[in-house]
Amino acid sequence: MARASPSPLAISLGDPAGIGPEVIAKCWDHRSDFALPPFVAIGDARSVSTVWDGPVEIVDDPRQADAAFDHALPLIHIPLADADSPGHPSVAGAHCSLDALELAVGLARSGSAAAVVTGPVSKEQLYAIGFQHPGQTEFVAERCGVSPGNVAMMLAGPTLRTVPVTTHLPLRAVAAAVSSGLIESRGRATLRGLQRNFGIAEPRLAIAGLNPHAGEGGKLGQEEADLIEPAIAALVAEGWRVTGPHPADTMFHARARANYDAALCMYHDQALIPIKALHFEDAVNVTLGLPIVRTAPDHGTAFNIAGQDRADARPMAAAIRMAAECAAQRMEMA
Amino acid sequence: MARASPSPLAISLGDPAGIGPEVIAKCWDHRSDFALPPFVAIGDARSVSTVWDGPVEIVDDPRQADAAFDHALPLIHIPLADADSPGHPSVAGAHCSLDALELAVGLARSGSAAAVVTGPVSKEQLYAIGFQHPGQTEFVAERCGVSPGNVAMMLAGPTLRTVPVTTHLPLRAVAAAVSSGLIESRGRATLRGLQRNFGIAEPRLAIAGLNPHAGEGGKLGQEEADLIEPAIAALVAEGWRVTGPHPADTMFHARARANYDAALCMYHDQALIPIKALHFEDAVNVTLGLPIVRTAPDHGTAFNIAGQDRADARPMAAAIRMAAECAAQRMEMA
Repeated sequence: MARASPSPLAISLGDPAGIGPEVIAKCWDHRSDFALPPFVAIGDARSVSTVWDGPVEIVDDPRQADAAFDHALPLIHIPLADADSPGHPSVAGAHCSLDALELAVGLARSGSAAAVVTGPVSKEQLYAIGFQHPGQTEFVAERCGVSPGNVAMMLAGPTLRTVPVTTHLPLRAVAAAVSSGLIESRGRATLRGLQRNFGIAEPRLAIAGLNPHAGEGGKLGQEEADLIEPAIAALVAEGWRVTGPHPADTMFHARARANYDAALCMYHDQALIPIKALHFEDAVNVTLGLPIVRTAPDHGTAFNIAGQDRADARPMAAAIRMAAECAAQRMEMA
Repeated sequence: MARASPSPLAISLGDPAGIGPEVIAKCWDHRSDFALPPFVAIGDARSVSTVWDGPVEIVDDPRQADAAFDHALPLIHIPLADADSPGHPSVAGAHCSLDALELAVGLARSGSAAAVVTGPVSKEQLYAIGFQHPGQTEFVAERCGVSPGNVAMMLAGPTLRTVPVTTHLPLRAVAAAVSSGLIESRGRATLRGLQRNFGIAEPRLAIAGLNPHAGEGGKLGQEEADLIEPAIAALVAEGWRVTGPHPADTMFHARARANYDAALCMYHDQALIPIKALHFEDAVNVTLGLPIVRTAPDHGTAFNIAGQDRADARPMAAAIRMAAECAAQRMEMA
């Protein structure tokens, strides 16, 4: 059950031709079942009405959202010149999705929104309009004045939270991209995030090895001794509760998960395989290290099923709930 | 429930100072609860009596095991000059564990045993006596006259089976070690193994990508297009039901797992993270591509808890049950 927030959450619809508008509308429909707090959607109103026949109320300001939320989906309208058809993204749609994202972040920065939840965007479309960031996370970090190395992308589910040190890199580039400095900065962002967003006073971080069996004493790789152990020692010296390097394959069963609050992983699939194997429907992407709370469902635009009423709204609902919980946690500690 | 086999299973105790003797004795103790068929243990009798006070009956031949199994743990005694203490491995113990393994394989090759289950050995101790293979799997393959490239190490649990293409390599060496030829040979060994050991007439194999998002159309790596897609095309051309390359992070949730009988993964942790996250207590290591059935529990010698009556016998029980099921399946098809 999400705790009440003082102001509504701001949710960017994502790409208007993707499943974002549909799953956000479904979340409003099932707001009671999903136990969702008031939120305001941001994006093109027609991208919602094309895929959903429920009530939408256009608002100018998040403060109007609380009153509207009871009887309609409150929406700050960012008009799109020609409405996109579901499944057919356009350059205009990419502009719209970026404007919505920027406004959502601005509202949270100013305190008008309690937190930001972001709908899925199309990176290909964004790149076509000159977007230079690897993804929304880095854009949000920049708009908040935080360097990308100091944020951490956490995937959080009911029984596991993982954070990758490196993200969207070819596997052959991973070993060279891992450094003690990056492990430390991601580790700190994660530990502070566990305190601020999750209210864990003395968070425990388990750090994975890079190689099978965490290098097996050097026989299967040197990065554990050369890079990971020094980073762990540095974090421990700062007073943090950090263990590892742990063999990645034995870190994620139920008994092992009970020993830590988050697992810091060296690369994308090391972090995402276990979280999605265990929590495919309710894993939430949480950006740590920001002055604001930002979450996202852990799925893409799914253009192939957009507009067919087939999209599962549970991941978006989980992202909304977690944003509200993290925002309430921050309020409590402020 | 394991089906009856015509001859007992042969189980090598593994390193006498590890937890092998204890978990095998516990399996005999709980043979009814665990639904285990008759088996004969092979190794030093004192390594069992040191950690367990149940009845042991020394036999010369697996054929005597059926009669003994009712009232005692049947054991083919391979004497160790000085009995090892639990937790303290020795060179003599390594010789004993290798002799036991070799005899178990020989009994299965000759038809005197229905299948081989191997207890955990210490690679360090084996290397100290000149053992040249990466592990027991490769040794068993050689004793069966099969080249290591044509066997596949499957990890099999109740809802997932995975097979790594490359195994014990540093992560930085993985990309260069993956080849179309190796993907094809591991794929064939897996597909034939699903037919012979698991009785699946038209097995479905899902092949993972190497890179995040399976390379995302080349933006995150070329190995999918250069190596994996040609291997899949070759296997499909042979008439096999093979799909991929799939993004590894979205392959292992329940709905995705329903679409295949085994997942072929590119490296150790890609295969072992999901199987151990989901099936830590009952994942079984099954060697495919051999003329005999061979399984093993997916854990090591655990010297740190040996002799303390703390070892969990469930993984060994799962390995024994699966060996019996695979052997029965092969009988049926013969």
